[in-house]
Amino acid sequence: MVEYRNLLVDRTDDTVRITMNRPERRNALSAEHLTELLAAFRAAGDSDATGVVLAGTGKVFSAGHDFADVAARDLDGVRELLELCTEVMRTVQSIPQVVIARVHALATAAGCQLVASCDLAVAAASAGFALPGGKAGWFCHTPAVPVARAIGRKRLMELALTGDPIDAATAEQWGLVNRVVPDEELDAAVDDLLARATRGSRASKAAGKRTLYAQLDRPEADAYEIALEAMAAASQTPGAKEGMSAFLEKRKPSWPD
Amino acid sequence: MVEYRNLLVDRTDDTVRITMNRPERRNALSAEHLTELLAAFRAAGDSDATGVVLAGTGKVFSAGHDFADVAARDLDGVRELLELCTEVMRTVQSIPQVVIARVHALATAAGCQLVASCDLAVAAASAGFALPGGKAGWFCHTPAVPVARAIGRKRLMELALTGDPIDAATAEQWGLVNRVVPDEELDAAVDDLLARATRGSRASKAAGKRTLYAQLDRPEADAYEIALEAMAAASQTPGAKEGMSAFLEKRKPSWPD
Amino acid sequence: MVEYRNLLVDRTDDTVRITMNRPERRNALSAEHLTELLAAFRAAGDSDATGVVLAGTGKVFSAGHDFADVAARDLDGVRELLELCTEVMRTVQSIPQVVIARVHALATAAGCQLVASCDLAVAAASAGFALPGGKAGWFCHTPAVPVARAIGRKRLMELALTGDPIDAATAEQWGLVNRVVPDEELDAAVDDLLARATRGSRASKAAGKRTLYAQLDRPEADAYEIALEAMAAASQTPGAKEGMSAFLEKRKPSWPD
Repeated sequence: MVEYRNLLVDRTDDTVRITMNRPERRNALSAEHLTELLAAFRAAGDSDATGVVLAGTGKVFSAGHDFADVAARDLDGVRELLELCTEVMRTVQSIPQVVIARVHALATAAGCQLVASCDLAVAAASAGFALPGGKAGWFCHTPAVPVARAIGRKRLMELALTGDPIDAATAEQWGLVNRVVPDEELDAAVDDLLARATRGSRASKAAGKRTLYAQLDRPEADAYEIALEAMAAASQTPGAKEGMSAFLEKRKPSWPD
Repeated sequence: MVEYRNLLVDRTDDTVRITMNRPERRNALSAEHLTELLAAFRAAGDSDATGVVLAGTGKVFSAGHDFADVAARDLDGVRELLELCTEVMRTVQSIPQVVIARVHALATAAGCQLVASCDLAVAAASAGFALPGGKAGWFCHTPAVPVARAIGRKRLMELALTGDPIDAATAEQWGLVNRVVPDEELDAAVDDLLARATRGSRASKAAGKRTLYAQLDRPEADAYEIALEAMAAASQTPGAKEGMSAFLEKRKPSWPD
Repeated sequence: MVEYRNLLVDRTDDTVRITMNRPERRNALSAEHLTELLAAFRAAGDSDATGVVLAGTGKVFSAGHDFADVAARDLDGVRELLELCTEVMRTVQSIPQVVIARVHALATAAGCQLVASCDLAVAAASAGFALPGGKAGWFCHTPAVPVARAIGRKRLMELALTGDPIDAATAEQWGLVNRVVPDEELDAAVDDLLARATRGSRASKAAGKRTLYAQLDRPEADAYEIALEAMAAASQTPGAKEGMSAFLEKRKPSWPD
């Protein structure tokens, strides 16, 4: 078991829970914190778990970059930090597990980017979301990348230009999170959605997730080229063969992986 | 009149109705069924009709691919089937007529893809939508292509990863269908929306539909290049000339085509 | 001060107000009107203002192209007009100021395109939006470009194919405008949203706006390349340095520009 200074990582059954645990710094994403997140997601990705929950402790889900870690850096230093941060976001999407954000409180800047980068997200009613960089003299350029791909353009402009937070209900209406529930029901809602998203063939879900991210944001004809080949290949896997046989024979499938 | 084994095709006034009629197989899309759909859409496309309604009989709108037709195929065989299926979806979008889905019941997998591929869709309140491939060991890779282009990313992930159905009201809120109505008002709502979408100059609507699909999913500057040239060309058509003259002369236009 | 025949342009504090003032022609966008809009937006862009309000006088926000100015043009002439129109839309997005549409009434065709092209939009409850070109024998090919990027695909098809207007509440739900308010609260709502969108470092907002439009509509990996470099560069600006220092020193920032 790796020792983390910024994270709690544990596993229950098929689920890895990665909990940002630097509450005194509002779970700010210092280089050290990001390095640990990257290691934890990679380890989860290499494991036989089927799902990952990303959570946080304390009064804030994550406040984004740690200014104390940014202010002293020159251009190359900041670029290096942002490349590390982007690699964390990409890893959330490239590992085969379904990753769900458990958003119990405010998620801002790169913290909001984390939520947008997870495959799924459930928020407590008291959570909030903001891209406040423009208020601080910097700007949430990279956090806006996955946020723009979850919500509409006018809403993105409002979030990024005003820097003001939206509440959880608005985030659900805009499509930034899948579900908003009363605070005390957060864990149950996360577990329910993750269980439904991970049941069935692990290999099939992993291939599905990979193809979804590959085909998004492309002209439809390009997307079909990617998806068609993936789907043809998937039809020959033991999981697909077993699923179809079980369906046709009206029996419960027995997943081979 | 072509004889179809899986379809009912009829024409009333300016509308072709293509009805999937294989209820005992839940309107599953076997290669034969897809071949007939392709032929029917192409025939409608070559006709002087202005609109096409895609409907289904029985308890399900369409359950997607017919596993009985997939299970025995090797990689090349499945690829061929998926190419045929994709060609149906592309034809729905490439014919000059406005195509509207009349969704009276559950539409799953490639059945849901059909709804997403139609220009417009009206659903009965008791309809439902699902991408259940991930549950079955395969995955709805290609159905997710047009669905992703109608709804938000987080919602796509939920549909594709959980495989669980959403109800018609949710589909309307997410933008997968244009309208949800009580079951008994479905035909009236389909006819109303189609009538409004097809009135006016047939050539103008056809050019409009073609340009819309060409410019979507592209960076805005590329989209403008496509749309600007189409709009300049359209201004010189008899339809546009007549429309503008009628407007300026405050009289009812008399469409030349 | 430039004299405009179609516009009222004035400046209060940090805000330039550009008001289409050709009510007897429903603020239709003749070549002369578009030329003036382009000049006014460019002048605003070159000024030290931080925000621009685009408004209209009379019973209509803008009815789009002026058919009296289109009908007599040949292909090259219409292309030239559309290139001018597209340049107006691009300029709205390329100037460093935050541009907000104040939509008090119906916005149709290129008038609706103007709303979609502004960074933000607030509508009065009695406003409406339509892409009626298909009804008139032409088609709203270019207006559909930015509208498609604000709302979902099925909704775009409905707007563009039917030509029928949607009300302000529907436009808000679909994401075409940020906010709908009672008619008498329109100015207050515009001022409030613009104030929140423009506070802070002017240079930071300008860079933010530029990067947002650059990264949209692209595959996520391409978008990250653009945004990451912009964000690294932004970290070295006086605004970002001051914002981070002020935050870390728990004092109010003093913006250098």
